[in-house]
Amino acid sequence: MLPVLRRGISILGRDSPIIDIGGRRTFLKLGAAMAGGALFGRGAAEAGTSDAFPPQDAPWSQTLGPGIVDRPYGQPSQFVKDVIRRDVPWLTASKESSVSFTPLQDQTGIITANGLFFERYHGGRASVDPQQHRLMIHGLVDRPLLLTMEDIKRFPSVSRIHFIECPANGGMEWRAAQLNSLQFTHGMVSCAEWTGVKLSALLEEVGLKKEAKWALVEGADAAHMDRSLPIEKCLDDCLVVYGQNGEALRPEQGFPLRLIVPGWQGNVNIKWLRRIQIGDQPWFTREETSKYTELMADGRSRGFTWLIYAKSVITFPCPEKPAKGPGIYEIRGFAWSGKGRITHVDVSTDGGVNWERARLQEPVLPKALTRFTHEWRWDGKPALLQSRAVDETGFVQPTIAELRAARGVNGIYNNNSIQTWQVKADGSVFDVQLS
Amino acid sequence: MLPVLRRGISILGRDSPIIDIGGRRTFLKLGAAMAGGALFGRGAAEAGTSDAFPPQDAPWSQTLGPGIVDRPYGQPSQFVKDVIRRDVPWLTASKESSVSFTPLQDQTGIITANGLFFERYHGGRASVDPQQHRLMIHGLVDRPLLLTMEDIKRFPSVSRIHFIECPANGGMEWRAAQLNSLQFTHGMVSCAEWTGVKLSALLEEVGLKKEAKWALVEGADAAHMDRSLPIEKCLDDCLVVYGQNGEALRPEQGFPLRLIVPGWQGNVNIKWLRRIQIGDQPWFTREETSKYTELMADGRSRGFTWLIYAKSVITFPCPEKPAKGPGIYEIRGFAWSGKGRITHVDVSTDGGVNWERARLQEPVLPKALTRFTHEWRWDGKPALLQSRAVDETGFVQPTIAELRAARGVNGIYNNNSIQTWQVKADGSVFDVQLS
Repeated sequence: MLPVLRRGISILGRDSPIIDIGGRRTFLKLGAAMAGGALFGRGAAEAGTSDAFPPQDAPWSQTLGPGIVDRPYGQPSQFVKDVIRRDVPWLTASKESSVSFTPLQDQTGIITANGLFFERYHGGRASVDPQQHRLMIHGLVDRPLLLTMEDIKRFPSVSRIHFIECPANGGMEWRAAQLNSLQFTHGMVSCAEWTGVKLSALLEEVGLKKEAKWALVEGADAAHMDRSLPIEKCLDDCLVVYGQNGEALRPEQGFPLRLIVPGWQGNVNIKWLRRIQIGDQPWFTREETSKYTELMADGRSRGFTWLIYAKSVITFPCPEKPAKGPGIYEIRGFAWSGKGRITHVDVSTDGGVNWERARLQEPVLPKALTRFTHEWRWDGKPALLQSRAVDETGFVQPTIAELRAARGVNGIYNNNSIQTWQVKADGSVFDVQLS
Repeated sequence: MLPVLRRGISILGRDSPIIDIGGRRTFLKLGAAMAGGALFGRGAAEAGTSDAFPPQDAPWSQTLGPGIVDRPYGQPSQFVKDVIRRDVPWLTASKESSVSFTPLQDQTGIITANGLFFERYHGGRASVDPQQHRLMIHGLVDRPLLLTMEDIKRFPSVSRIHFIECPANGGMEWRAAQLNSLQFTHGMVSCAEWTGVKLSALLEEVGLKKEAKWALVEGADAAHMDRSLPIEKCLDDCLVVYGQNGEALRPEQGFPLRLIVPGWQGNVNIKWLRRIQIGDQPWFTREETSKYTELMADGRSRGFTWLIYAKSVITFPCPEKPAKGPGIYEIRGFAWSGKGRITHVDVSTDGGVNWERARLQEPVLPKALTRFTHEWRWDGKPALLQSRAVDETGFVQPTIAELRAARGVNGIYNNNSIQTWQVKADGSVFDVQLS
C-alpha cells in the first residue's frame, strides 16, 4: 500500500511544510546507528504516487521560456552569478600585473569552465587580432619561419587535457596569511582540453641546429613576457595551442595562440605566443632572475624551478562550503602532478594521524586535474581534514613544515604542501596550519 | 651564416611583404615531388635571428590591456564572434519549440564549450530557481522522496564525458535538403563532462519494488517534457547531473538538474528534471507516440528508438572550412557511438571506393565524441571525402542508401549515415549524396 500524496504539500513552493526524515536512513545504507546522522535536510519528504505532478506548478512550468536563438553564445544561469573569478586587492601593486582565482569550491569535474579559468597578467589582457598575429621561429635553426594562424592550423593537430598552475598558488600560505578561502589558497590552478600543434613538429619544420639547447619563448602582450626553456622539454610534450575546451582560446588565456608546457609552472606557458628563438644557453630574462626565483634562507636563490610537484586539496568541505550537521559526507577534492599521473590520494580527518585511501575518478590523465572522493562519517566533533597526493614517480606531497624546513619562508613560490581544513563543531571550516 | 632580419619586414603588420615559400618544403617531410604542394600561404617567410623582436610592435604589444578582474566571468574574443549557435528559421513552427546547432566546424577537441552546446527546446529555455527546485521520486518504490538540490549534491558524485545528440540531427538529409553546412547537417551533437549522481544510487535510496520495470522522467519546463525509460537503463549508467564542464549546468542544458542517458537520443536526457515515477510499463507519452517515432514505408511506426548508433563526420575540410589549393591536409572529424567506444574510423577520398585507417585521439571514451585525423595529399582534383565509424560492438556506420532501403524516407530521425563532402577543384566543399 503506497502513501497517497498529501494535500497541501507543494512540491515546488518555497514555504512547503517539508518533512525532515532525520536519521532514519542514509544513502549509503550504513544503518541507523549513526549519532544524529541526518543525511537529508529540509527538502526530504514523503512523495506520492499520483500520475500528475502536485497541485502547484512553479512559474517556469507555466510559461514559455525564451526561444531559439535567444542567446547564440550561451551564459550561466542568473542564479549562479556569484560563481566568478575573484582577486585579492592588496596582493599586487597594479591591476594590470595581477591575478584572479578560480572558484574551485564550485568546480564540478576536472574541466575548468572557460569563463572561470584563473588569470595571470603581466601587462593586462591583450586583445590580439588573429589575422595580424604571427609566430616567428628563428635562431639556431636551418629554416627560420614566420607563421600565420592559418599556417599553424594546417599542421597535424593534437588535443590534451592538462592543468595550468601559477607557482604563486598558495604563496600567501608560506607565512600563514589564512585568507580562509579555498578560492584564494588554491584558485590559481585550472584545467582544460587544449588543442593545437606539437612544438616538436614546428621545430622539426624549422630544423634545429646541433648546438640548439634552449628556446626563448615570448608573448605579444605589452609585458613581452618571456622565458627560457630547455630544448628537451620543447621536444617532449609542449604544445602550441589555439583551442581551449572546444572553442578558440580565450583572450585571458592567450588568444589566438599560447604555449602549453605540460606540468610546468604557469608563467612558462607563454600566452599570445609570438616568438620562439632557439639558442645554446638560457637567456636569464627578468622573468627568470628577478622574478620567479626563490630566495632561500641562506641568501641564495633557486631558479628555473619549473616543475609542479604533486599536490592536492579538499574542495568539499572547505571554508566556502561548510558541513551542515553530523552525517555522512563525501569528501571531494583535486590532485595533480607535473610529473605525470596521480596514482593515489590519501585522506585524513584527524590532522594526519590516520590516513585512508580515496577513490580516483576515471579517466586519470597525466598532468591533469584528478578528482578524488572519500566517504566520511562525521560525528559532529571538531576535525582536521587533509589530503595527500602521490604521483607515478612515487613523489609524496609534503607538509608545510617540511617545505619551510627545506626552503625557509622568504619565497612565495611552489607551495605544494598538504592543506589542513579545520572543521568546527558547527560545521564551519577554517584554513589552519599544524606545527 | 644566418640571415639577418631584413629591414622593412613588419612581423605583425597587416600589409607586410610576406614571402611565399611555395612548394619548397612541407611539414610532413614528404619531399618536394608533390604537384603544386604549397603548405604555407601568405604568412610563411624567412625570419631573422635578432634578439629583439622586429621593428614594428603591434598595438597590443605597446599598450596595457584590461587588468584584474575586468571580467569576473570570461567571454570569447571579439574576433570569434561569428562562432555561434545558429538555427534554420524555416525548420520549426515556433521559436519556443525549436533547435540551435553547434558550430562543429570550429570545435577543437572533444569538449563542446558550454556557450556553444546545441539547444533543443519544447517550451523555451526555462529559468529555474535552484532553491525552489525539487526532484520527486515516487511510484513503485518503498520510500518515495522529495529532494532539494542540496540533498542531491550530498550523494556520491561521479563525472563522465558523454555526447548528447538529437535524433533529428541529419534529419534534413533524408530528403537531401543539402543545406551545404556542417553546422546544419551535424550540429545537433555536442559533448561535455557531466557531474552528478548515479540514478542507480537514487533508486537504491528509494528502494524499487519488484514490479518496477519502467521510469517516467519529467521536466519542469512549460512543455513538461516526459519520456519512459526501461529500468535496466536507469540502473546501468544514467546520471542525474548538476555540473557541465566544471560549472553549474547551463540553463540551455537544464539548470539546475538534468538527466543524462548515455548514448541515447537527446530528448530522453530530460532537462530541468523534476520527477521520476517508477511503474511496471511504459507511459506512451505524447513524446514517444506522436513525436519521436518514425513512420516506415509500410505505414507502421518505429518507437522507442532510443539508441544512437555509430556515426562520424569530417569537420575539416567541410563547406564552412574549404581547402585552399593542392597540398597536404590533415582531414579531421568526430566519431561517436551510443553503444560504447569507437574502435576505428576509416576515411575515403574517392567516395567510398578506397578506405584508409584514421588516427584516433586519446583518450577514446565510451559514448563520447572521439576525434580522428587522417593525412591527405590533395592533388587539386575533385574529391569525395567520407568517414566511416566502427564501434566496439562491431557496428559499422551505414550509407544513406542503406538506411533509405531499410526505412524509407518518411522519417526524420536517426540518420547516422556516412556523410559525403564533395571537394571541387577550387577547394570549395559541398554536401552531396551518392546514389
